[in-house]
Amino acid sequence: MKITIWNENWQDRFQDDVKAAYPETIHGAIANFLKARGDKDWEIRIRTMDMEECGLKQEDLDDTDVMLYWGHLKHKEVPDEYALRIAERVHQGMGLILLHSAHASKAAKYLIGGGHGCGLTWREDDEHERVWTIAHNHPITKGIPQAFVVPADETYAEPFHIDTPDELIFITWYPGGEVFRSGIAYRRGAGKVFYFQPGHETFPIYREQKEVQDVIMNAIRWAGEGCSHYEFINDNGRSHGTRIEP
Amino acid sequence: MKITIWNENWQDRFQDDVKAAYPETIHGAIANFLKARGDKDWEIRIRTMDMEECGLKQEDLDDTDVMLYWGHLKHKEVPDEYALRIAERVHQGMGLILLHSAHASKAAKYLIGGGHGCGLTWREDDEHERVWTIAHNHPITKGIPQAFVVPADETYAEPFHIDTPDELIFITWYPGGEVFRSGIAYRRGAGKVFYFQPGHETFPIYREQKEVQDVIMNAIRWAGEGCSHYEFINDNGRSHGTRIEP
Amino acid sequence: MKITIWNENWQDRFQDDVKAAYPETIHGAIANFLKARGDKDWEIRIRTMDMEECGLKQEDLDDTDVMLYWGHLKHKEVPDEYALRIAERVHQGMGLILLHSAHASKAAKYLIGGGHGCGLTWREDDEHERVWTIAHNHPITKGIPQAFVVPADETYAEPFHIDTPDELIFITWYPGGEVFRSGIAYRRGAGKVFYFQPGHETFPIYREQKEVQDVIMNAIRWAGEGCSHYEFINDNGRSHGTRIEP
Amino acid sequence: MKITIWNENWQDRFQDDVKAAYPETIHGAIANFLKARGDKDWEIRIRTMDMEECGLKQEDLDDTDVMLYWGHLKHKEVPDEYALRIAERVHQGMGLILLHSAHASKAAKYLIGGGHGCGLTWREDDEHERVWTIAHNHPITKGIPQAFVVPADETYAEPFHIDTPDELIFITWYPGGEVFRSGIAYRRGAGKVFYFQPGHETFPIYREQKEVQDVIMNAIRWAGEGCSHYEFINDNGRSHGTRIEP
Repeated sequence: MKITIWNENWQDRFQDDVKAAYPETIHGAIANFLKARGDKDWEIRIRTMDMEECGLKQEDLDDTDVMLYWGHLKHKEVPDEYALRIAERVHQGMGLILLHSAHASKAAKYLIGGGHGCGLTWREDDEHERVWTIAHNHPITKGIPQAFVVPADETYAEPFHIDTPDELIFITWYPGGEVFRSGIAYRRGAGKVFYFQPGHETFPIYREQKEVQDVIMNAIRWAGEGCSHYEFINDNGRSHGTRIEP
Repeated sequence: MKITIWNENWQDRFQDDVKAAYPETIHGAIANFLKARGDKDWEIRIRTMDMEECGLKQEDLDDTDVMLYWGHLKHKEVPDEYALRIAERVHQGMGLILLHSAHASKAAKYLIGGGHGCGLTWREDDEHERVWTIAHNHPITKGIPQAFVVPADETYAEPFHIDTPDELIFITWYPGGEVFRSGIAYRRGAGKVFYFQPGHETFPIYREQKEVQDVIMNAIRWAGEGCSHYEFINDNGRSHGTRIEP
Repeated sequence: MKITIWNENWQDRFQDDVKAAYPETIHGAIANFLKARGDKDWEIRIRTMDMEECGLKQEDLDDTDVMLYWGHLKHKEVPDEYALRIAERVHQGMGLILLHSAHASKAAKYLIGGGHGCGLTWREDDEHERVWTIAHNHPITKGIPQAFVVPADETYAEPFHIDTPDELIFITWYPGGEVFRSGIAYRRGAGKVFYFQPGHETFPIYREQKEVQDVIMNAIRWAGEGCSHYEFINDNGRSHGTRIEP
Repeated sequence: MKITIWNENWQDRFQDDVKAAYPETIHGAIANFLKARGDKDWEIRIRTMDMEECGLKQEDLDDTDVMLYWGHLKHKEVPDEYALRIAERVHQGMGLILLHSAHASKAAKYLIGGGHGCGLTWREDDEHERVWTIAHNHPITKGIPQAFVVPADETYAEPFHIDTPDELIFITWYPGGEVFRSGIAYRRGAGKVFYFQPGHETFPIYREQKEVQDVIMNAIRWAGEGCSHYEFINDNGRSHGTRIEP
């Protein structure tokens, strides 16, 4: 399976507290645990926003089975054209895993936000959160306990402006009194999308928390299952159907 | 309730067979049955693509509770900016009823097509179709029989590239061997979207078929219920949440 | 609209702390606010488990548009036959509103628990809970704030063994670290079911908390909309379909 | 993976046209293709209604990962107690595949029929049907074409009285003018349920039609994935939750 880790890679380079949390960068931390703990047949590729075409070349997307996407401050600087490439590839069968603040990416707004949405409430008080498993025995929750605690993260809270999830996988509790649909899964065309909330850039969650790593690895297997370049019959109304009967 | 009928109004003016089917234009035919058979408190407004800003001015959208949308050949000529105005208003609480070939409009792709989708299979053989009620006792199917026949229409068929519907309202059968999810309902933010397949431009379906008129009027009441300019708390992550618990 | 309030009416009579919280009984408290604050056309009927046939006579069900159901300790003493009457009436179009511990009733297990389920985690520590609105602009959340606090209630927590809800309306936060899908809506045949968590028998929630009353009244309007004795064609495979096409 | 094929095994023994279509019995035909074409690690067990406890002993269910269920004329003779064993095992994580007329079994009514339902319209005119794939790239549709024809089967038609499917996998078209949600998937507790329509007892569909065999084998893999005896925390409210936060 071909996995592309896409990272905005801005705060990783220019913001001290993020550099302190992720000296190896966020994509580096993710790549490290995928290589150390992931499946043998996983090919890991890194693409970052500072690369040509924002690291979202069509040829790279065409060669990707599952994409992990982390972004935050530069969403608006990703051209619509590139974000739509991601959406189209998902419809063809690519898996997409949106991490933390990727909820506000253009790709997320196209795929799970009804074009406009994906807004939420947030605050940065470095508090813990408790992630509750709602979809028991789902491929994404395989081996995940009924609940686990992330010791420090940003708080994301309802209202969360998302398309009705096909599957509600996790709900998160916060000590400040909020709740959040923190793990949500969708089918889009022949592809799949999973959003997962943990992973604020100032905490080494992706490097250090086993449960978060396990969820991401489960999500890769789920999203990559049967990943393909699906050939739809007469897709997009571009071509003409033929009468079958009698 | 303030209802805006939006029509591309191109084939209505320049294509002979459409002018023959709808001498009063498609929006005119819809307006006529809404006025003749609709609720007393319905205010009907017409907007067409040949008007300023494609008939999609922000002030008109802000003053609309439910929009009916018919378009076909000129979807690509509606600027993204205007289509996104529709999506944002839906998220605020406006109802949107997408008619027939509006499945391929930019508004539909943003709201129910995952940015990319809404493709389908189609053919024009002037055949009848049988529309089956799936969601019994739903507001949209109130008074609608278990099945009804549209004597002649374009054939729309699966695969239909749509976000998983929140509610599957109708499935249509075609003599050519196809099936189609012809009535599908969604919540998007505080608003609602309903897509309904019947209504090819060369057949006077909106003027002549009572069941189709009934479905559209039911959909207006459903989509307009509680329509509003919903004030979300900390919408879109623009503002900062406050800790609630001590 | 004909509304039947069904109550187990056991703790109301024989348990001191419940008699203290509800001197007028739980069904009495519900009837009082429905009469004081509900719609003019609502006819309120009381049925309790100590009546003939557990207060679930077929003729009463047939004459009910929306049933409110509160039960707790005596679920197993309601014969399967009577619980199935409720399920059948819901499929015909009756609305059913399951309150608090009614989650474990036989009617709930049949209608929203896959025959077996509706289990949950619970504890009685008299703590407050915060109910979050998830389905914005839904008929059941009309006028309900983004979140409201119930000052003291029993704690119900995930895992909650329910059929996947058609609509997730509320999620509740508890200070003990739990979350719960506290407001869930379903279509069953031609009818509707809504489960709502607040309302432990030792706190006067139904009498005193306006938001809880508002949700219940909204749910009655939602569940009763189009309530009927729906005539399905060839229902239950008892009769034979006829070929339609020549 | 341990697979139990359960068959009513009545018409197989006593009805001539069924004996002619399935001289090896229906469970025999299913077992044959599972052994010939299935995965190496599949252990196939046969249980029939004429065995002790209707072939539904608790020990057999406890030792089953995925159960295939075919029944028709004798549904009412399966005691509720045994049908509830099936429902409970599904909630614990067993997969259940309901074939053709199993829609009317007690197990189906408990698990996907809201206690009452699962009715449909039917007729026996020995016509062909066209099964359309709706859920593209779903594990159950892996390798299945956009549409395939079953040359002769019983006609099952809407209205189909089922709980809203978690996933709509197939829709079937009939030459008589009907449509039917012929492939529907559900999560129930920690388990999964799939209903699939093809397979009337008088046609050798299970023995002869490769696409139907492929769907059933895909469904076994899907339903068996992560199958388990799931240990829920405080399941069924029988035990008491503990406060987590200090």
